Amino acid sequence: MNEININQNIFEQNEQVAAHNRAWLKERQLTMVNLMASPGAGKTSLILQLLKHLPQGLSAGVIEGDVASSVDADKVTAAGWPVVQINTGGGCHLEAQMVGQALKQLNLSGPGLIIVENIGNLICPVDFNLGESLKLVVTSTPEGDDKPLKYPGIFAAADIIAINKIDLLPHLDFSLEKFSQAVKLLNQQAKLCPVSARSGDGVVSLLSTMLKS
Amino acid sequence: MNEININQNIFEQNEQVAAHNRAWLKERQLTMVNLMASPGAGKTSLILQLLKHLPQGLSAGVIEGDVASSVDADKVTAAGWPVVQINTGGGCHLEAQMVGQALKQLNLSGPGLIIVENIGNLICPVDFNLGESLKLVVTSTPEGDDKPLKYPGIFAAADIIAINKIDLLPHLDFSLEKFSQAVKLLNQQAKLCPVSARSGDGVVSLLSTMLKS
Repeated sequence: MNEININQNIFEQNEQVAAHNRAWLKERQLTMVNLMASPGAGKTSLILQLLKHLPQGLSAGVIEGDVASSVDADKVTAAGWPVVQINTGGGCHLEAQMVGQALKQLNLSGPGLIIVENIGNLICPVDFNLGESLKLVVTSTPEGDDKPLKYPGIFAAADIIAINKIDLLPHLDFSLEKFSQAVKLLNQQAKLCPVSARSGDGVVSLLSTMLKS
Repeated sequence: MNEININQNIFEQNEQVAAHNRAWLKERQLTMVNLMASPGAGKTSLILQLLKHLPQGLSAGVIEGDVASSVDADKVTAAGWPVVQINTGGGCHLEAQMVGQALKQLNLSGPGLIIVENIGNLICPVDFNLGESLKLVVTSTPEGDDKPLKYPGIFAAADIIAINKIDLLPHLDFSLEKFSQAVKLLNQQAKLCPVSARSGDGVVSLLSTMLKS
C-alpha cells in the first residue's frame, strides 16, 4: 500500500514559501513579527500601542488574520496604519502563502516593521512558519499562570513572550514567578516582557526588545 | 484525476462514532456536555463549581482534554470526582473516538452528568461532534465582548453560552449588552448565563439550565 504523507507535504511546502517570504523581507529591510495568542489576549490593542511608540525613520504595517470579520483591521485603519486583512473562513492558523500575498498587497518600503496578527489560537499557528524575523507570543494574566504547562508548543517556540493585562494583577491570582518558572522549563532563551496594552506600561520596553531581536 | 476528499471522510467517520456514543449514553441515562472555550476562560474552575452543586441522585464524571499535562485532571481528582485525561499531544480538538474510549474507562452508572472539557480553542473543536447532549460554550469577560463576531462558528453552534468571570466586570470594558447582541445575530436559541466560577455567582442557574436542556 502506498501511503501519502499529507502533513509532511503541507509543512514542506509551507517552509519553502516561508523561506521565500524571509528573503523578500530581508531585501526590503523589513522586520516581520509573527504575533500569536489566545482569543482575547489583547493582540490588536497591543499592536496599536506598539505602533504608537515606533521610532522615527521606520515604516510600519499590519497583517490581520481572522477566522471572520474585519473588526481588528478596522481598528488599525482608524489608527492610520496600512493593513491587509486575511479571513481564513474557519481556518485555525495563517500559512506562509497567505502572508506572502498580503505582503505584496501591503507593499511597504523598508526599513520598517510588519506585525502579523495570527489567528487567536494557542495550538495550530506554531506549526506554520510565515517567514517571520521573530515569534512574539502574547499571554494575558486572566488566562492564568499555568498556560505554558498546557500549551507547551507555542511557549517553547517563542522568541519573546509578552504578559499582557498586568493592570488586572491586583484582581487575579496570577503569579508572575510561577509563570516564568513554567516557561523556563520549556524555553531558556525567550525574553519575558510584562505589559499593559490598556495603560501602556511596558510597551516601550517590549518594542525595544522586538527591534533588537 | 481522482480527488480524495479527506476532510469529508474524517467528518463522516467522526459522526458515526458520535452517534454510537450518543446511543451508549442514552442507554445509561447519562447526559454529556461538550464544554468548549478559549485557553484560560476558566473551564476547569467552572466544572468544579458545577459539580459542587449537583442535585442528589445524580452521578458525575469528567473527561479532560488537553494538548499536554494533567494539571486539570489533577484538580478534578483532588475534588473527589472520577476523571479520565485525554492528551492529544498537539491535537487541537477532541474527536468522538477519543471520547468513546474515555467513556468506557470512566464507566459511570446513570442517571448522571458527564462534562467533557474540550481543548482550549475557539475554532477547531466545533467541527467534531462527540455524541454530546449539549454544547456549552464558555467565554470570559476579559476576552472582550466582540468574540462572537470573530469566532462565529462556535457561538452559532452553542446550546448554552456561559459568560464567566463576571466578578471582573468592574475592571473591564466588557458590555453584556454588546455581547448578547453579537450572539443574537448568529444564534437566537442559545441561552446566555452570566457566571463567576470564582465567587460561585450564577452557577446554580447555569447548572439548572444545563440539566433542563
